[in-house]
Amino acid sequence: MIRVSIIGSGNLACHLIAAFGRAEQEGSDVKLVEVYARRTEGLSTLVPFDKICTDIHQLAVADLYIIAVSDSAIAGVSSELSFKNRLVVHTSGSVALDDLDSNNRKGVFYPLQTFTKNKEVDFGGIPIGLESQNSTDFQLIKKVASAISTTVFAMNSSQRKALHLAAVFVNNFTNHLYSLADAICEEHHLPFEILKPLIRETTEKIMLLRPDEAQTGPASRGDSETILSHLELITKENQRKIYELLTQSILNNGKIL
Amino acid sequence: MIRVSIIGSGNLACHLIAAFGRAEQEGSDVKLVEVYARRTEGLSTLVPFDKICTDIHQLAVADLYIIAVSDSAIAGVSSELSFKNRLVVHTSGSVALDDLDSNNRKGVFYPLQTFTKNKEVDFGGIPIGLESQNSTDFQLIKKVASAISTTVFAMNSSQRKALHLAAVFVNNFTNHLYSLADAICEEHHLPFEILKPLIRETTEKIMLLRPDEAQTGPASRGDSETILSHLELITKENQRKIYELLTQSILNNGKIL
Repeated sequence: MIRVSIIGSGNLACHLIAAFGRAEQEGSDVKLVEVYARRTEGLSTLVPFDKICTDIHQLAVADLYIIAVSDSAIAGVSSELSFKNRLVVHTSGSVALDDLDSNNRKGVFYPLQTFTKNKEVDFGGIPIGLESQNSTDFQLIKKVASAISTTVFAMNSSQRKALHLAAVFVNNFTNHLYSLADAICEEHHLPFEILKPLIRETTEKIMLLRPDEAQTGPASRGDSETILSHLELITKENQRKIYELLTQSILNNGKIL
Repeated sequence: MIRVSIIGSGNLACHLIAAFGRAEQEGSDVKLVEVYARRTEGLSTLVPFDKICTDIHQLAVADLYIIAVSDSAIAGVSSELSFKNRLVVHTSGSVALDDLDSNNRKGVFYPLQTFTKNKEVDFGGIPIGLESQNSTDFQLIKKVASAISTTVFAMNSSQRKALHLAAVFVNNFTNHLYSLADAICEEHHLPFEILKPLIRETTEKIMLLRPDEAQTGPASRGDSETILSHLELITKENQRKIYELLTQSILNNGKIL
């Protein structure tokens, strides 16, 4: 049996708790022994009361402590732990391994996904990137990650940072493009709903083709007439700048500039 | 019975032919009477030979001619039609209604979707925007569009142009962000596959939340430490410019600049 303790009660923590709960029901020998949270609201439907701890100095013994709190709180929480030489991992794409306190063995357990409160997610399909300081610890976190996901992989800190950067492009920036399109629709009295099938198919295409192969549109076919007519239509300065820069980058095949 | 003729044999033409074929099998009174194409390769699996016409001056009589060719070929094809006062529509998001020859009644039949050769698409879910010069013609193209899609709506030329612009943001530009992320992965020896569940979930979120509500990431929480560490990591100038501009636009909530 591998005993896991989760520190945190936010979005990711709740999704992890649910995923470990399901794994345990399905007979996994990875057991969630405790959840630490300052605020326990919302946890009662996920964990029995006797597994919730609100005093960070009274944590139960576990083989792995997963800190699932906001990036800025990780260092502080890890330095408050009152035990030594146990395995403690954080779940962030951008926080350095060394932000974890040196009283304990360090690692990273990074699920590459965007989590939404109250929206169920199939953890089995979420890639989990793992990092540790030695191979024994790696084997342990690999077993734990494999209990909830089918895609578990080793990475180093610089790969993790690069992955986080790539995630910003495909998630945060893509979503911002949706916002800009939403604003264009609103300006022209069109419902954003009309774009949803196209948004979905844009994603589906990428499951089959490499992004370069899937590229279409006026920039990729060098259609300057349509590009100019779009620029005439745009009334907002930030939309224009983004249109121009991304068009230029597509025209240059993303390479030059 | 409404007789429809399709002019063209490209991606969209083939998807339309298949969609009308399915509608007819399901008992629709919209009938595909003919397909005109200069090149007939690839059509034989979609249409019986006696319905394929290769001479534009010999087109059969139809109630609606749908020109599904590339934007730059629309005006030329429409001026080659040797009949008069019939209803002729094009399928483009960006070509003006007046690019169609005035010998015939004009209209637009714009399916808002990205079409991929050999990738089946559920036409039923694709919004089709319609435009015509009078209400009788509108009723006719509405019946035809409703035979293959559940989302049929009227729009004017300026709304169509805006919709096409919005589509460039959510499809072409989003896909280019995927390309940039692909390049980052390659540079750091990470498979692009790892990003796919995140790409899928980014889309799924937008089906439930408005884009502004779904926005997450370092820019949306004003996390300048992570933003700076990403900028340090970026080695390509176009990636840096795009990162900076989109980050700034998110920081400004897409409004100022």
